[in-house]
Amino acid sequence: MKVCILGIDGYLGWSLALYLKARNHEVFGIDNFSRRLQVQDMGSDSIIPIDDFRGRSNLIPFSEGDISTDGTCKEYFREAILEGNKPDVIVNMAQMPSAPYSMIDAKHAAWTQRNNVIGNLNVLFAIRDLMPEVPMLGLGTMGEYGTPNVDIPEGEFELEYNGRKTRAQFPRQPGSFYHASKVANSINNEFACRMWGLKITDVMQGVVFGTKIPEMVGDPKLRTRFDVDHCFGTAINRFCAQTVINEPITPYGIGHQQRGFLPLEDAMRCFTIAIENPPIKGEYRVFNQFEDVYTILGLARLVRDVARETGVNPNAIIRNLTNPRKEAEEHYYSPESLKLRKLGYHPSIDMRSAISEMLLDLSRFRGNLEKVKHCLVPDIQWDGTKGKVEFE
Amino acid sequence: MKVCILGIDGYLGWSLALYLKARNHEVFGIDNFSRRLQVQDMGSDSIIPIDDFRGRSNLIPFSEGDISTDGTCKEYFREAILEGNKPDVIVNMAQMPSAPYSMIDAKHAAWTQRNNVIGNLNVLFAIRDLMPEVPMLGLGTMGEYGTPNVDIPEGEFELEYNGRKTRAQFPRQPGSFYHASKVANSINNEFACRMWGLKITDVMQGVVFGTKIPEMVGDPKLRTRFDVDHCFGTAINRFCAQTVINEPITPYGIGHQQRGFLPLEDAMRCFTIAIENPPIKGEYRVFNQFEDVYTILGLARLVRDVARETGVNPNAIIRNLTNPRKEAEEHYYSPESLKLRKLGYHPSIDMRSAISEMLLDLSRFRGNLEKVKHCLVPDIQWDGTKGKVEFE
Repeated sequence: MKVCILGIDGYLGWSLALYLKARNHEVFGIDNFSRRLQVQDMGSDSIIPIDDFRGRSNLIPFSEGDISTDGTCKEYFREAILEGNKPDVIVNMAQMPSAPYSMIDAKHAAWTQRNNVIGNLNVLFAIRDLMPEVPMLGLGTMGEYGTPNVDIPEGEFELEYNGRKTRAQFPRQPGSFYHASKVANSINNEFACRMWGLKITDVMQGVVFGTKIPEMVGDPKLRTRFDVDHCFGTAINRFCAQTVINEPITPYGIGHQQRGFLPLEDAMRCFTIAIENPPIKGEYRVFNQFEDVYTILGLARLVRDVARETGVNPNAIIRNLTNPRKEAEEHYYSPESLKLRKLGYHPSIDMRSAISEMLLDLSRFRGNLEKVKHCLVPDIQWDGTKGKVEFE
Repeated sequence: MKVCILGIDGYLGWSLALYLKARNHEVFGIDNFSRRLQVQDMGSDSIIPIDDFRGRSNLIPFSEGDISTDGTCKEYFREAILEGNKPDVIVNMAQMPSAPYSMIDAKHAAWTQRNNVIGNLNVLFAIRDLMPEVPMLGLGTMGEYGTPNVDIPEGEFELEYNGRKTRAQFPRQPGSFYHASKVANSINNEFACRMWGLKITDVMQGVVFGTKIPEMVGDPKLRTRFDVDHCFGTAINRFCAQTVINEPITPYGIGHQQRGFLPLEDAMRCFTIAIENPPIKGEYRVFNQFEDVYTILGLARLVRDVARETGVNPNAIIRNLTNPRKEAEEHYYSPESLKLRKLGYHPSIDMRSAISEMLLDLSRFRGNLEKVKHCLVPDIQWDGTKGKVEFE
């Protein structure tokens, strides 16, 4: 299949490009490089060095451009079609992925929602006008749902009210303006399927972790980025980075928050299953994509224990930070995740060995980690106050 | 009270300014005049002539500016506070209100979502940073809910799933990218209350109709705009305009679509009740605001009958148009609307006399209506095809 990846320069986008290429799919994509710049704005950089645009575009046909501009988005697809590269599927990963970044101030919140929502809107119109039969894979987040006191279905559920029943999308309750941008995309995507008969899969993705997939081994040019700063580094990735340079592992608050997690390679497996099994005309399909649910503190302990056992850091410790976010720290959490498994997905990687591998990979880049040590502890707080948060 | 109305130059904004002023509230506001320009882009103009910025700002302190720019929004409020005009409540009507306009193409959809969502986001941050105790009244639409096969609660409801229960926002299913922009605002507003303790009322408003409120009588400078084009003219307003110039009244499709409606004066009464009874800290409050539910065809018949009886058009006729929208034309519809009534709202105007008054008012502007006759029949179709729709 011809797969077009929007946001191909990102952590997930680049990984997916290599994963699909290794499986004989033809991959191409576009990126505006906002991720590289934003991580640099945080005073950080990819811990694992990655190739530049020129190098990457020697491997995978790769354009520079911003799909949140209507003209650019449509022109990109129009040219692809003229050149005989009409995609069989479009993967929209051209999304700013950081909750803290979206909470910095009005400007960053607006940038996030504009980039993520208007970009996706332009893709929907481009598909409708140029190739309505081409399915889209959208990238949502489990964080759209929040932590409701009931099980979380995969998108649709049977709603009962005042004795009558209907099918409806499960209500969302996002935890940041970034998460809210993803909710807005879910709303626009469902609408586009209902109105125009588009075929969209929205993946409500858990927190992805990991330094690599097997397709990257052997050539440094193939590596994907790895961020550890408090904006773009996600929990397990940041925990591993911290302990490698003998910094304390820092869960936020008491750490009983529960989230769904999955390793990078399993995320690739899930995306590929979704791509190879497209929805039918007019179908809006939601997958909850994660391997298992863990508490943040449980993961911190696991990273600590593996760091000690492997000798990466015999003195690994945990220190809880005052939570910079406003979120429930004790809550019910039971999201469903059956649809991908029905299509053949089997989680394949055990957490312990995944973390062990990450710790070893990151140990090779201790110097880079030391350089961005000051970026590990958050200074963006959900209530708008500034300054590094304190240890509890 | 000091009331700041964002979007004060609009149909509702200007009416509310006069309505509140007459009740001894101090009113001021800002507008970017996009509505005037967009209606002109449709080849139309306000049928009832309205005063210009200079004239209006002699009556009500009125700034020109675009709150969808972060800098402008915050600067506007900062200056107001410095000048001793800190509002006691902010009413955000700075929203593009047309579903068809948002469906023209990618550019118009993006403009709609950017203007409505980013503008509102800037207001939320300005409130948080400058005056977190000041309540906001947001303007949503009943169209956020769509037409689900169950009753529609006022925002929150008790959700039951797999034997557990929780309070949740009722799922939204918008009917256009404009409606989706309002859903995104509801999501951001609820989040801002939950995170920052803001006090927000979101009014899910039905379709408003009417040419004036009593506060406008006697001085042509006080009039509010009245649009009849297929983008910015809503159903009853357009039906009245059509029959006044002996054009057929044109419901879309079979016309069994049901919607909540309310006259302009009752809308003002509802807003005022919401303003004078603000939510408490952290409360996100949703009102469903309409007087009663009617079918589109029922209203078309009512307009026809009143036009015949009053002699405004003894030959008034109805001709159904092919529906340019994609929407259910036969559906269950039973939205709840109790909260405003509990706060003292009583619908006051009977439909027949409201329509009769509108027909007489519009008869005085037959010449203006004749000039925009070509704008009455839609040429924006939900599926993206172009060209005027046909009679059925």
